Amino acid sequence: MTDSVKYFLPEERIPRTWYNIIADLPEPPAPVLNPGTKQPIGPEDLAAIFPMSLIAQEVSTEREIEIPDPVRDIYKLWRPSPLIRARRLEAALDTPAKIYFKYEGVSPAGSHKPNTAVAQAFYNKEAGITKLSTETGAGQWGSSLAFAGSLFGLEVKVYMVRVSFNQKPYRRALMETYGATCIPSPSEETECGRAILAEHPDSPGSLGIAISEAVEVAAQNADTNYSLGSVLNHVLLHQSVIGQEAMEQMEMAGDEPDVIIGCAGGGSNFAGLAFPYIGAKLRGGPAPKIVAVEPAACPTLSRGSYAYDFGDTAHLTPLMKMYTLGAGFIPPGFHAGGLRYHGMSPLVSQLMELGEIEARAVQQLGCFEAGIQFARSEGIVPAPESTHAVRVAIDEALAAKEAGEAKTILFNLSGHGHFDMQAYMDYFAGKLEDRDYDEAELKRSLAELPAAE
Amino acid sequence: MTDSVKYFLPEERIPRTWYNIIADLPEPPAPVLNPGTKQPIGPEDLAAIFPMSLIAQEVSTEREIEIPDPVRDIYKLWRPSPLIRARRLEAALDTPAKIYFKYEGVSPAGSHKPNTAVAQAFYNKEAGITKLSTETGAGQWGSSLAFAGSLFGLEVKVYMVRVSFNQKPYRRALMETYGATCIPSPSEETECGRAILAEHPDSPGSLGIAISEAVEVAAQNADTNYSLGSVLNHVLLHQSVIGQEAMEQMEMAGDEPDVIIGCAGGGSNFAGLAFPYIGAKLRGGPAPKIVAVEPAACPTLSRGSYAYDFGDTAHLTPLMKMYTLGAGFIPPGFHAGGLRYHGMSPLVSQLMELGEIEARAVQQLGCFEAGIQFARSEGIVPAPESTHAVRVAIDEALAAKEAGEAKTILFNLSGHGHFDMQAYMDYFAGKLEDRDYDEAELKRSLAELPAAE
Repeated sequence: MTDSVKYFLPEERIPRTWYNIIADLPEPPAPVLNPGTKQPIGPEDLAAIFPMSLIAQEVSTEREIEIPDPVRDIYKLWRPSPLIRARRLEAALDTPAKIYFKYEGVSPAGSHKPNTAVAQAFYNKEAGITKLSTETGAGQWGSSLAFAGSLFGLEVKVYMVRVSFNQKPYRRALMETYGATCIPSPSEETECGRAILAEHPDSPGSLGIAISEAVEVAAQNADTNYSLGSVLNHVLLHQSVIGQEAMEQMEMAGDEPDVIIGCAGGGSNFAGLAFPYIGAKLRGGPAPKIVAVEPAACPTLSRGSYAYDFGDTAHLTPLMKMYTLGAGFIPPGFHAGGLRYHGMSPLVSQLMELGEIEARAVQQLGCFEAGIQFARSEGIVPAPESTHAVRVAIDEALAAKEAGEAKTILFNLSGHGHFDMQAYMDYFAGKLEDRDYDEAELKRSLAELPAAE
Repeated sequence: MTDSVKYFLPEERIPRTWYNIIADLPEPPAPVLNPGTKQPIGPEDLAAIFPMSLIAQEVSTEREIEIPDPVRDIYKLWRPSPLIRARRLEAALDTPAKIYFKYEGVSPAGSHKPNTAVAQAFYNKEAGITKLSTETGAGQWGSSLAFAGSLFGLEVKVYMVRVSFNQKPYRRALMETYGATCIPSPSEETECGRAILAEHPDSPGSLGIAISEAVEVAAQNADTNYSLGSVLNHVLLHQSVIGQEAMEQMEMAGDEPDVIIGCAGGGSNFAGLAFPYIGAKLRGGPAPKIVAVEPAACPTLSRGSYAYDFGDTAHLTPLMKMYTLGAGFIPPGFHAGGLRYHGMSPLVSQLMELGEIEARAVQQLGCFEAGIQFARSEGIVPAPESTHAVRVAIDEALAAKEAGEAKTILFNLSGHGHFDMQAYMDYFAGKLEDRDYDEAELKRSLAELPAAE
């Protein structure tokens, strides 16, 4: 086992442009609609909460968008991230498959999220904004925006889903170390928070509610903008550095992936790795199988409708055409807060509809089992979200063994689990169980989808 | 700020040999003594708890000792570790000094400790051992040996200081994820644990007690050996990969350090960075200032005696000549469990006595302040132990600013603080205070040093 396991690129190979898959789509994305008029919204509708530069990126059809030098300089703190061949995992599985993973947990905040957090902070700072508001579930996104804010001197206010806020005090401590403020949501600070608390004083909160609070604060304060950690086109755009680097590193390794795997909550780490590959395919290149992995408890791509829906619970956002379980869908409890979102990025959804990707829903016990096997082979303890990708990578490697095929598997290890050890403790204590979504809840929630015009 | 910040070496530049400073010392280290006879011990005295290969390394006078391929292959999972120029911290301090740090937190367990854990697991496996016992304070070492054990299929049993065991459930979860067993110490499992509990049922434990328990288990079971995470010559030897890589990376950066800084508990991360530089100096090379940073609450080098002492509380270990506060010394509570040890590595102690290094004792509030400034500039949240090195690096940079000198500072960032966020929370909550050691306690403890023959 004396071969290379890590494929490092030098700093100067950090991509100079982000890759925009919209340029390669066979048809343009469905427009985002004003929920009142059901008409496409214009840039001015978003100007209250986003800087114009990000709004321009949201609708851009350019294939390559330049990464500003100050953003690229900050990327240097951890990028290019390593591509690693999981030789020890391969040996443990006794599989003929080669397993590679792109490791985004090397970022200061511990996940892929800073790739977009830094860009968003930069453009907001440039636009004269001094404060950013956002939501966070598991805490990966809140920590990342807090980190990015500290580098640009922006005040960051994070609305954290209350149940996570209580369960994960160290996530909050990390955000505070970066100088951000972290508030349990629903809070008394916003109208929508107060309205929810009036009706449900013990509300555990949800990502949808926290988004509503953060958007409200941004909409009502001229010095404050809103930042979102996934779903939107510009967020996925910024994550394209992952796949661009991976393509170059796979070339260094002399391999070409047959299967590409990412976990998908809002879709950003999945898209970050997969979109540059899908784009190459759409332009006539090789056609690997692309798998988005989601929790069986919140199976947006597998069981949702492809329809216009709100991004949040209080219906403050515009309508986006996407796979959705319904903005009011409440998944059962499970340990991957970053995968609890009711919707899916419109771009990922469109590619699903086009048949370019496939979805796989997996249960959490198998994910933790895979995560532990991975930790004991490769040393890295994956975030609960990332264990979903590990699970399917292992399943693919075992299928290759069964079939006697020498497949090449590439997955995105989106983050480490250092702030999620309670989930591992619960697993070891036998407190976790597999959870399916509730059929009746899904039916109820889908029935509330806004009517199409 | 478009220059490089990271200096990555390719995998093939992981050192092929460890550097043994004993070859360059002006006189041989003082012998280790049998506490009964006060005569130098022989290899056979250690054979009950260490494999012969490590005992041979402990007393070797060879300058270079080959790193076995299987160890080097595992090093590839995270080595070479990055050398990073802290340009953002420099800018925040507005200093003419250049600040570089070697970042050992990229290892799977999050610190420099796996550099020796992997080597120790390898040699024990090779010797037919199936179980390792060890102690851990803050948890960095226990996690690292658990990780190393998982790679070689060794059962690892970790005695964790009870107060840390209770304060840090996630450290324990990490060890269990790697497949190790973690037991609060003092425990009912050992004679010395039972003796202590009989007298002090509520004993919070100490590193010295935990060492006694782990050594007892290893001494009494033929299939079990003991592993130590610092202090001993072979441990410091394994850490020399840090400084060897750093020398090559500083050359890539075109710089030569004027000051080299590491925090020092048992001495291993400090020695890992500093010894290759000190060796070069002893062979006629440049002479940077070398600073070992220790907590004011446990100032072994600054206030201890250079004398023969036990390594543990129950006096199960041989006598080593070292700086010591006395094996019975109890420091006041402070948040850097890895720096609470009463002694100091005999090799570091000898170099202190020779005037090759200097010691600086610092208070914890200033350390957390430095750690937070570092996190907000460079993104990485340092372990409480590592903040001690950050504090002195910042102090040196500010002194350079005062003096108008363009100094080059290099420090070892031995680990991240992801499992130590309670310490940061306590700091933010104003619960921490500066703590000096107790003069009367030190006097009492030093009076109990074993008599020299």
